[in-house]
Amino acid sequence: MSAPLRLGIAGLGTVGIGVVKIIQFHADLIALRAGRPVQITAICARDRHKNRDADLSMYEWAEGARELAARDDIDVFVELIGGDEGVARDAIEIALATGKDVVTANKALLAMHGQALAETAEAAGRVIRFEAAVAGGIPVIKTITESMAGNRIRRVMGVMNGTCNYILTRMQSAGLPYDTVFEEARQLGYLEADPTLDVGGIDAGHKLSILAALAFGTQPAFDAVEIEGIERVSIDDINRAADMGYRIKLLGVAQMTARGLEQRMSPCLVPADSPLGQLEGGTNMVVIEGDAVGQIVLRGAGAGAGPTASAVMSDIVEIARGVRLPVFGQPAVTLARPQAARTAVPAAYYLRLMLADKPGALAKVATVLGDSGISIDRMRQYGHAAGEAPVLIVTHKTTPEAIDHAIEALPRTGVITGEPVELRIEEV
Amino acid sequence: MSAPLRLGIAGLGTVGIGVVKIIQFHADLIALRAGRPVQITAICARDRHKNRDADLSMYEWAEGARELAARDDIDVFVELIGGDEGVARDAIEIALATGKDVVTANKALLAMHGQALAETAEAAGRVIRFEAAVAGGIPVIKTITESMAGNRIRRVMGVMNGTCNYILTRMQSAGLPYDTVFEEARQLGYLEADPTLDVGGIDAGHKLSILAALAFGTQPAFDAVEIEGIERVSIDDINRAADMGYRIKLLGVAQMTARGLEQRMSPCLVPADSPLGQLEGGTNMVVIEGDAVGQIVLRGAGAGAGPTASAVMSDIVEIARGVRLPVFGQPAVTLARPQAARTAVPAAYYLRLMLADKPGALAKVATVLGDSGISIDRMRQYGHAAGEAPVLIVTHKTTPEAIDHAIEALPRTGVITGEPVELRIEEV
Repeated sequence: MSAPLRLGIAGLGTVGIGVVKIIQFHADLIALRAGRPVQITAICARDRHKNRDADLSMYEWAEGARELAARDDIDVFVELIGGDEGVARDAIEIALATGKDVVTANKALLAMHGQALAETAEAAGRVIRFEAAVAGGIPVIKTITESMAGNRIRRVMGVMNGTCNYILTRMQSAGLPYDTVFEEARQLGYLEADPTLDVGGIDAGHKLSILAALAFGTQPAFDAVEIEGIERVSIDDINRAADMGYRIKLLGVAQMTARGLEQRMSPCLVPADSPLGQLEGGTNMVVIEGDAVGQIVLRGAGAGAGPTASAVMSDIVEIARGVRLPVFGQPAVTLARPQAARTAVPAAYYLRLMLADKPGALAKVATVLGDSGISIDRMRQYGHAAGEAPVLIVTHKTTPEAIDHAIEALPRTGVITGEPVELRIEEV
Repeated sequence: MSAPLRLGIAGLGTVGIGVVKIIQFHADLIALRAGRPVQITAICARDRHKNRDADLSMYEWAEGARELAARDDIDVFVELIGGDEGVARDAIEIALATGKDVVTANKALLAMHGQALAETAEAAGRVIRFEAAVAGGIPVIKTITESMAGNRIRRVMGVMNGTCNYILTRMQSAGLPYDTVFEEARQLGYLEADPTLDVGGIDAGHKLSILAALAFGTQPAFDAVEIEGIERVSIDDINRAADMGYRIKLLGVAQMTARGLEQRMSPCLVPADSPLGQLEGGTNMVVIEGDAVGQIVLRGAGAGAGPTASAVMSDIVEIARGVRLPVFGQPAVTLARPQAARTAVPAAYYLRLMLADKPGALAKVATVLGDSGISIDRMRQYGHAAGEAPVLIVTHKTTPEAIDHAIEALPRTGVITGEPVELRIEEV
């Protein structure tokens, strides 16, 4: 058996402690699978004296992550601090510069600086692995870069923020408005310190940009992700969508088109009886489509100490086994900067309008849609209350431009009140 | 860029031609991802002159698979012939003895002789990879051996024979009896030459024994798989199970218990609204449970040229990248011979009886169940016809032994006609 693989772990939150516990509890199993022991040499965290419900007495403590990364008695620097700037980034750069491989769960850092880090790592002959950065315990990075290596990938889709999916499914099951469930989620500790990262779609957008880079051989381009959060999803739309056989999900979609790379993270309708539609609570799901394999669906826990630590461990074991792949599955210098394209792939859309109680009102709406080149698949008008009536429309496949045109023109008819709501119905 | 990886492909059926086409169409993509070109040097098949709808003119033809395996101008022998004896096995042994790595989709061979082949390969410093052998394009081998390397695996479950799932879902959707749908499947070309391999559960049993070896660190032990095929599943039971909210699936379950390794491939009931219950047609699904990651569900095409060739390509690219892992995820000499245990994990059961139209009949059945230690969760008696009435019983969790006891005792009551049907309800 070869020499032990020596780890330095920076960050001892739930994930960091999860990794420590796996290494402690499954030392023999891991050594057998990795072909060598995996051991923790040194650790660090902001507060050394916090009670962490784990025996850390046998590890050396480093002063900080930068010091830990620079030590000459570790082989792999495990970064579980988080944040796209500051100590996490510095420490990873120090680790690479001083000959260590890196395992990280830091999606923000990879989305923002993944290209530069990958180039640095590959120039230095080091690897960076990050299975835990996307969809927790679900092996999506490995599936795209390894299992689908013989495929041209067509589309990557996914529900990749468990908190948003929890909020949306809880709104539906309990019939509660967004604000109430948001507050519940906060009290349950499901939200990031800055909740915009979750409900604003940013965290999920980071993940999507990483998957897009892997799938399409492009540089990560988080700034080109069209992002819309779930803050404006109303219980009304959730209920109306359900009436029509749909669920609303914060769905990420990335696909390469003739115009360029489309990346979008936004609330979408999906059929209630599809795998994505049936996904409840904090579970994540990623759907990947390749030209040879067809559609692969992966489902599992997207967060939490155990699942995330499991993904971190899979990266550590791969390094222990001597597996050395390019950071994004092909050499970083070969990754093209993507031509970012706004979504242009046609889809059906869900529209909800409040129609004023005036003669000919519905005809005017229908005319605007027709003039925008949109044909109607299904329409429902509900009863009037306070002089207005909700109207739901499911369109046939149309372009986002046609929808934009209609949304702009509809208020000018004078027969609708408030803002029309439009949500894309993604084909899954 | 390093030297090309040179392949010899034995077997040019749909999968073999699928691999050839991927290598032809995606040569640049694969070279970029693998870090070196992947090229086909020589091929062989039983009939050289068959029209295969692919340009094979640039490859050398070998006389046969054994000759191909022995060539000194290939690095990897790709075995797509099939069969657990004869030429496939011989050729793989020749390839290993003459310094080649092996990629195969041959589940029967691995289930029957995987241990010996793994020991041979590892003693010779060669690798054998077989992602395509289980569940087609679904990356289940990689998920167990790599992504879950930090987990103690608790249970592996799956629907892994698309033909059986097609037959069972078609019976339900069309309301047709087994024999009719079996004949349809034969005419559609869905069945193996020996259909018992499919409908007898043997093919799926091979796959289960491979997954169990990977998951539990044991030698493959196909002879210890309890196997029951779908031949005895009646349209009646499919309909009755649906009434009670279940679907019948040919489900494989492997788990390590205190008594030993349980491996079972048999028709089971699963909740209609579970991911397994919703699986229709030829799609496969594998569910893996680990102590850290929880439950991972993988879904995709389990057969077909594209999906299977995609899995073969993932193995080829891994070898091209220099990834060299033990055949079953840990050294073959460390794999324990499993203590095989008959299923003892308690479960709810579905029972269907034909009750004679006699006073006190139901009471006698209930007494036998009670005497066997079985308590009833739900029961339905349907109307009498021709002096007998179907009775459905869903039990609370009980042991297989208790069910066996009841099944043996029930005919002795004199109030049931025909054989009682019992099906396990698997918790998913």
